Amino acid sequence: MSDTHSRPSPEAVASVVAALAQRFESRCVTSQAVRDQHAHTLTWLKPEPPDAVVFPRTTAEVQEIVRLCAAHRVPMIPFGTGSSLEGQVNAPFGGISIDTREMNRILTVHAADLDVVLEPGVTRTTLNSHLRDAGLFFPIDPGFDASFGGMAATRASGTNAVRYGTMKDNVLALQAVLANGEVVTTARRAKKSSAGYDLTRLLVGSEGTLGVITELTIKLAGIPDAISAGICPFPSVEAACEATIATIQHGIPVARIELLDEVAVAASNRYSKLELPVTPMLFLEFHGTGAGVAEQARLFGEIAADLGGGPFDWATEPERRSKLWQARHDAFWAALALRPGCAGLSGDVCVPISRLADCVAETKRDVEAFGLTVSMVGHVGDGNFHALVVLDNANADEVGRCKAFLGRLVERAIAMEGTCTGEHGVGQGKMGYIESELGLGALDAMRSVKRALDPLNLMNPGKIFRL
Amino acid sequence: MSDTHSRPSPEAVASVVAALAQRFESRCVTSQAVRDQHAHTLTWLKPEPPDAVVFPRTTAEVQEIVRLCAAHRVPMIPFGTGSSLEGQVNAPFGGISIDTREMNRILTVHAADLDVVLEPGVTRTTLNSHLRDAGLFFPIDPGFDASFGGMAATRASGTNAVRYGTMKDNVLALQAVLANGEVVTTARRAKKSSAGYDLTRLLVGSEGTLGVITELTIKLAGIPDAISAGICPFPSVEAACEATIATIQHGIPVARIELLDEVAVAASNRYSKLELPVTPMLFLEFHGTGAGVAEQARLFGEIAADLGGGPFDWATEPERRSKLWQARHDAFWAALALRPGCAGLSGDVCVPISRLADCVAETKRDVEAFGLTVSMVGHVGDGNFHALVVLDNANADEVGRCKAFLGRLVERAIAMEGTCTGEHGVGQGKMGYIESELGLGALDAMRSVKRALDPLNLMNPGKIFRL
Repeated sequence: MSDTHSRPSPEAVASVVAALAQRFESRCVTSQAVRDQHAHTLTWLKPEPPDAVVFPRTTAEVQEIVRLCAAHRVPMIPFGTGSSLEGQVNAPFGGISIDTREMNRILTVHAADLDVVLEPGVTRTTLNSHLRDAGLFFPIDPGFDASFGGMAATRASGTNAVRYGTMKDNVLALQAVLANGEVVTTARRAKKSSAGYDLTRLLVGSEGTLGVITELTIKLAGIPDAISAGICPFPSVEAACEATIATIQHGIPVARIELLDEVAVAASNRYSKLELPVTPMLFLEFHGTGAGVAEQARLFGEIAADLGGGPFDWATEPERRSKLWQARHDAFWAALALRPGCAGLSGDVCVPISRLADCVAETKRDVEAFGLTVSMVGHVGDGNFHALVVLDNANADEVGRCKAFLGRLVERAIAMEGTCTGEHGVGQGKMGYIESELGLGALDAMRSVKRALDPLNLMNPGKIFRL
Repeated sequence: MSDTHSRPSPEAVASVVAALAQRFESRCVTSQAVRDQHAHTLTWLKPEPPDAVVFPRTTAEVQEIVRLCAAHRVPMIPFGTGSSLEGQVNAPFGGISIDTREMNRILTVHAADLDVVLEPGVTRTTLNSHLRDAGLFFPIDPGFDASFGGMAATRASGTNAVRYGTMKDNVLALQAVLANGEVVTTARRAKKSSAGYDLTRLLVGSEGTLGVITELTIKLAGIPDAISAGICPFPSVEAACEATIATIQHGIPVARIELLDEVAVAASNRYSKLELPVTPMLFLEFHGTGAGVAEQARLFGEIAADLGGGPFDWATEPERRSKLWQARHDAFWAALALRPGCAGLSGDVCVPISRLADCVAETKRDVEAFGLTVSMVGHVGDGNFHALVVLDNANADEVGRCKAFLGRLVERAIAMEGTCTGEHGVGQGKMGYIESELGLGALDAMRSVKRALDPLNLMNPGKIFRL
């Protein structure tokens, strides 16, 4: 196959759109407004809308769409909620956006097995509302109310990955329509299997480049009997990281351990009218049994005190926990409020936890050097942090400095044996870094797999790596 | 490429062996005895020895071997400790066994990051001895002292997967030599990443069919501050499964939850001179903080009592825990002792936990119907169990009944939405089941990936699926 992609001919696109319009009627839309909504709209990346948007309801309909597009060599872009942050839904070569919002049924909850089978358009808060009475929950909580198809495709994560894992760990099985129009089911409902290649985890994180996810079997957790949560100040980010390392090494199964730097804390003080000490803080949450969560909290307090931190202010009652965590919940809005009218751009890197303090420290030096407004929030138990830049998008000089700053952040993480993207995926935005992170051998292996499963390069082309 | 494989010509093999002998001298062995040791020797599967065995010491040496074999179209079979159970190390088309025993260095322990970088020939007990002083451990404990390369290749698991996961969850990154002789590094040392396709988990469980693993970055856990463990009788397997479900749903982070059926318990009573009630029993272990493990044990005891089980006899002191768990530790030998001089064959299936009791019950009916001696041990928290058949290998009729029994066990598990192999892999032994489990779509996707990464089908041919 050719190494470069090009737009299909206008005739090919017109044929496909006409056929989709006839087949799906009002569920095939070509208005400019809807097409624009289906391009990447959340960051600087240039929006590149599709030629049309179609809203299938069943796996069989997805197959029809895929076969039609494939026959005319027209690209396809799977679409969940459009909340991805690296241009994953852009259509640089045009094509058909396959919007899964009408595939939104929760099919079966298997409470005893702690799993649920659902369609890709279901969003996480919808599922959690549905599950509450069963005493179950789906633990992964990325910033937006994302769809399951989208979360699987980007290997999404959230604030409690340190205990519950990421999408890599919580997708038991997938059903997907591949580029050849065939339906693949990657696994059954067994909790573990050694039966052949792990197609589930090949598709998870493949950002729509290998197929359209049409059904998922998702792992659930029991809503914990008890939760304790609280906040703990530290004299430095380094001390906070050391406390995190010690906590995890002790086998304390901490559920959330989030870092706010002093800029983020100060911003939250202003925004939420709090009076927290302006110093790096850890926000922690423990899940388990009544005595267990109290003991975990107490032990953490001791660890913190040994490292010069504390006091650890914690509680078990929901209202008090919520109040204690307010600065964390408001962090994004508080940062934006530092410069009203400005936009926010979130860098996302992940390093070995032993390098996190250095990574944050060097990043802060860059913040000074580049004269930017940056608030830092980290999922410190995973070594993952977000540098939230608050900037005036209309100021070309500031935009330039921000881009340079974020580029250096990624290079820094890679140099520290980390990754260019902890959670947000590669999409278009990070294509430039993946080879320096993983090397040519890995990239060539990915290209080989892509060519094998999508020889015409019609599934979300122009994402993750250049062919 | 052709759909069938054939042995390379004797001349091609001789060329390769001669070149390897010249290059590696005493580290290339062609004696019949050593070749026979490198064929599958642990079950009925016919041993199929390689033409020669070579013992590389470095990744660069592995690359040389791979390139030489590839140039002459000679198959390669990666070899760890030879403890796999489905014929994974057999050489049905001859070829070169690449024995990694001399690649046995533990390279770097990153205690703060809870990871270790090591060579594929390192075995798990070697690593755990090395780590003890650091207060760390590698939790996966398959029955043999397997190598890390082998455990990764078969997606191995053990008794504490319910808390610590399987190899799928504990391999952070791999380095491997692919069929084209190129070295691939699949990831960095970040705890999570969304950077492209998950090549790590493509290789984990690929049973040597996609490349030779030459280095691994493995996740570690802290040795828990405290452990409680004990045993609990139940009136039925069903009640034991219900107690397991309830325990997990409560979010109790149980570390081990093992089921022995009454046959296994009776066998252990005889073998270890115990006086356990002859009824299904759960053997549990909890890890965590001092008060935490006591509370977990207490809560489990209540759950068990509610379901007609108990009393739950448990302890925290190492000697008492060991004594309580004796029947579980001795289960394999106790079963063999039921019929001295006979062999043991372990079936391995995994079903959704809600189907486990039915699966065990139906399997027991088959045990009666087929007139076999079978003791059952289950990693019940995962829905995985082993039917250990004790049989006289020389009795053709009994062997025939055992094969039929094990075949029906696999079909039963698949029919219950489970898998034909929870832990042992597919190899040769379960090739016949993988398509009925996953369907043609998934198998074709695996074949496409295999053909893309190993177009000449030289990497451990004749395993997992027919091309």
